[in-house]
Amino acid sequence: MGRDGRLIERLIEKIKKTGVPIVAGLDPMLDYIPRQILEKAFGEYGETLEGAAEAVWQFNKGIVDAVYDLIPAVKPQIAMYEQFGIPGLEAYKRTVDYCREKDLVVIGDIKRGDIGSTSAAYAVGHLGRVQVGSQSFAPFDEDFATVNPYLGTDGVRPFVDVCKEYKKGLFILVKTSNPSSGEFQDRIVDGKPLYEWVGEKVDEWGREHMGSQYSYIGAVVGATYPEMGRRLRGLMPRTFFLVPGYGAQGARGADLADFFNEDGLGAIVNSSRGIIAAYKQAAYADLGEEGYAQASRRAVEDMAADIRQALENA
Amino acid sequence: MGRDGRLIERLIEKIKKTGVPIVAGLDPMLDYIPRQILEKAFGEYGETLEGAAEAVWQFNKGIVDAVYDLIPAVKPQIAMYEQFGIPGLEAYKRTVDYCREKDLVVIGDIKRGDIGSTSAAYAVGHLGRVQVGSQSFAPFDEDFATVNPYLGTDGVRPFVDVCKEYKKGLFILVKTSNPSSGEFQDRIVDGKPLYEWVGEKVDEWGREHMGSQYSYIGAVVGATYPEMGRRLRGLMPRTFFLVPGYGAQGARGADLADFFNEDGLGAIVNSSRGIIAAYKQAAYADLGEEGYAQASRRAVEDMAADIRQALENA
Repeated sequence: MGRDGRLIERLIEKIKKTGVPIVAGLDPMLDYIPRQILEKAFGEYGETLEGAAEAVWQFNKGIVDAVYDLIPAVKPQIAMYEQFGIPGLEAYKRTVDYCREKDLVVIGDIKRGDIGSTSAAYAVGHLGRVQVGSQSFAPFDEDFATVNPYLGTDGVRPFVDVCKEYKKGLFILVKTSNPSSGEFQDRIVDGKPLYEWVGEKVDEWGREHMGSQYSYIGAVVGATYPEMGRRLRGLMPRTFFLVPGYGAQGARGADLADFFNEDGLGAIVNSSRGIIAAYKQAAYADLGEEGYAQASRRAVEDMAADIRQALENA
Repeated sequence: MGRDGRLIERLIEKIKKTGVPIVAGLDPMLDYIPRQILEKAFGEYGETLEGAAEAVWQFNKGIVDAVYDLIPAVKPQIAMYEQFGIPGLEAYKRTVDYCREKDLVVIGDIKRGDIGSTSAAYAVGHLGRVQVGSQSFAPFDEDFATVNPYLGTDGVRPFVDVCKEYKKGLFILVKTSNPSSGEFQDRIVDGKPLYEWVGEKVDEWGREHMGSQYSYIGAVVGATYPEMGRRLRGLMPRTFFLVPGYGAQGARGADLADFFNEDGLGAIVNSSRGIIAAYKQAAYADLGEEGYAQASRRAVEDMAADIRQALENA
C-alpha cells in the first residue's frame, strides 16, 4: 500500500508486518549526541544553531538507518528542534522527509491547538496543504500530529477536517504521562474524571472518521497510568492509543497489556530516550559512542521482546 | 527603561505612556493582504512559500510602521506563519525582531505546553537562550509567550523558570475566547468551573513571580465571556490578563471594563482582524487597499476610544 491509502491503515499494516507496536521518539538533546557527531557538525558549522541542527540531523539519520526495518513509526518531538530556531526546524523537516522516504509512519509530536481559524492554519501547515495564489504546498507533511484539546471542539475540528481530506490522522491528548497530569485531567466532573470526558469527545469525533477497524482520530494515553489506560481502553474500543512514558519515564511492558485490544492492536508505545540514547545505558555500553545507532537497534529489539511478553502473558 | 528590565514592567510602563491597553494581533492571512503587496512578493519569489512569507512580512511591516507609536504591544500568532513552513517561520522571526526594534513588547502567541523536559525546550527556544557547546543563542526571543496548561504544573514550570531568569513573562490559557471553550473549561469541579481552578494555579505560580504590582505570569481570559472575566478579575488581582476576542470575535468595549482593575491596569485587549484587516471594513473603505496601514492606525484609534469610554463609564 502506498501513501495513497489512509495513514491509520498504513500504521496498522506496518504494526502487523513488523510485529512491533513501537514508535521511536526522535527527541534529540545535544547531550544525547555522541562526541564524534558533535565534533564533525561543529567543525563544519561552528558552535551555532546551524551546527546544533546538523548534529541533530546526523544523529537522527544514524538511528533511523539502524532501526527503520524493525519499527512501524517514529515520533519526532518538534520542541527539541524548535529550541534551535529556524535551523532546528529545518532539521525537523529533514527528519520527517527522511523517515517518510524510509517508509516509516511519521507522528509529528506538535501538541498544537488553538481557536478554530488558528487551528486550521496549524492543520494545513502540518498535515495538509496551504494555498499560495494558484499553487499549494505541504509545508511539514507529517502523517499524524498530536493535538491539545483544552479549547474544545472548535479548536480540534479543523485538524479533523484536514485529516479527512488528506487521509492523515491525529492523536489527541487525553491522559498525559507526566507526574502532574492529574492536576487538571483527573479532576472529577459529574462523577468521572475530566480525561474520561475528553476521551468520550475523542471517541465521538472518531466515530465519524473511521478507517476499517480503527478511527484515524486517536488518543494520547500515558503508559505511566495503567489503570486509567485500561479504563479508557474499555470506553474507546475503536480509538488507537499513542502511549508515551515507557522506559525513561518509568513504565515497563507489564504495565502495557491493558492499553491493547484483544486483537493485539489499538496501541503503539513510544520510547524516546530509551531508544535514541540507549548507548548511555549499562546494557549497551559495550557498543560505545561509535555504536550508538546499533545500541538503538538493540534497545528496540529488547523493548519489542518486553512488550511481546507482556501481551502473551495478558 | 531598556530591555534590561522585567518585561511586565515595560508592558505596564508602555500602557501608561500610550494610554492604550491594546495589543495588535499580527495574524496575517493571505486574503487580508492587499493586492499590491501580494503581486510584488509573488513577482519576486513566485507563488511559493517564500513568496507568501515575503508578502506576510511586508504587510506586517507596513502595519507596524503605522501603529507602533500608538500601542504598547503586538501579538504575532505563530500558526499563521508556521502554515507557510520554514519561510513562514522566518517571517515570524523577522516580525518579532522588527517589533522589538520599534520598541514594542512582543507577545508570541505560541500556545505551547508539554511534559517538563519538552516544555523546557520550548521555553529556551522562545523566551530564553539555548546552549550549543560553549555558545548560547536566543532563537526566537519573544518577550512573552502564551502557554497551554492542560498538562499541569510540571508542564508550565519550565516556562516560569526561564521567564524568571530572562525577565520575560507568560500568559497562560485560563478561559479562551472561542465558542466551544466551555466544553472542558467550564465543567464544574468541586463546585466551581475548571477555568477557576486553572486560574487559581496561575495565581499561585504568579505569586512567587512578581513585578512591582503585577506578576509576570499572566492569564488569557477571553473578552467574549465578560461575566467570567469579572469573576476571575476578583480572584486574581495581581494577574495581568491578555484578553482576546474583541472585534471580529464579537466583544465590544462595554464588555471589557470588568477585566481591568480600579487602577485602569491589569488587562491588555487584543484585536487581530479588526486592526490588521481594517481596510476591508466599511468604516475605513475610503482609504482603499493602498491605505491599509493607515486604516489599521484609524482602527487602533477607534478601538482605543471605545475602551477608554468603557473604562470611564465603569
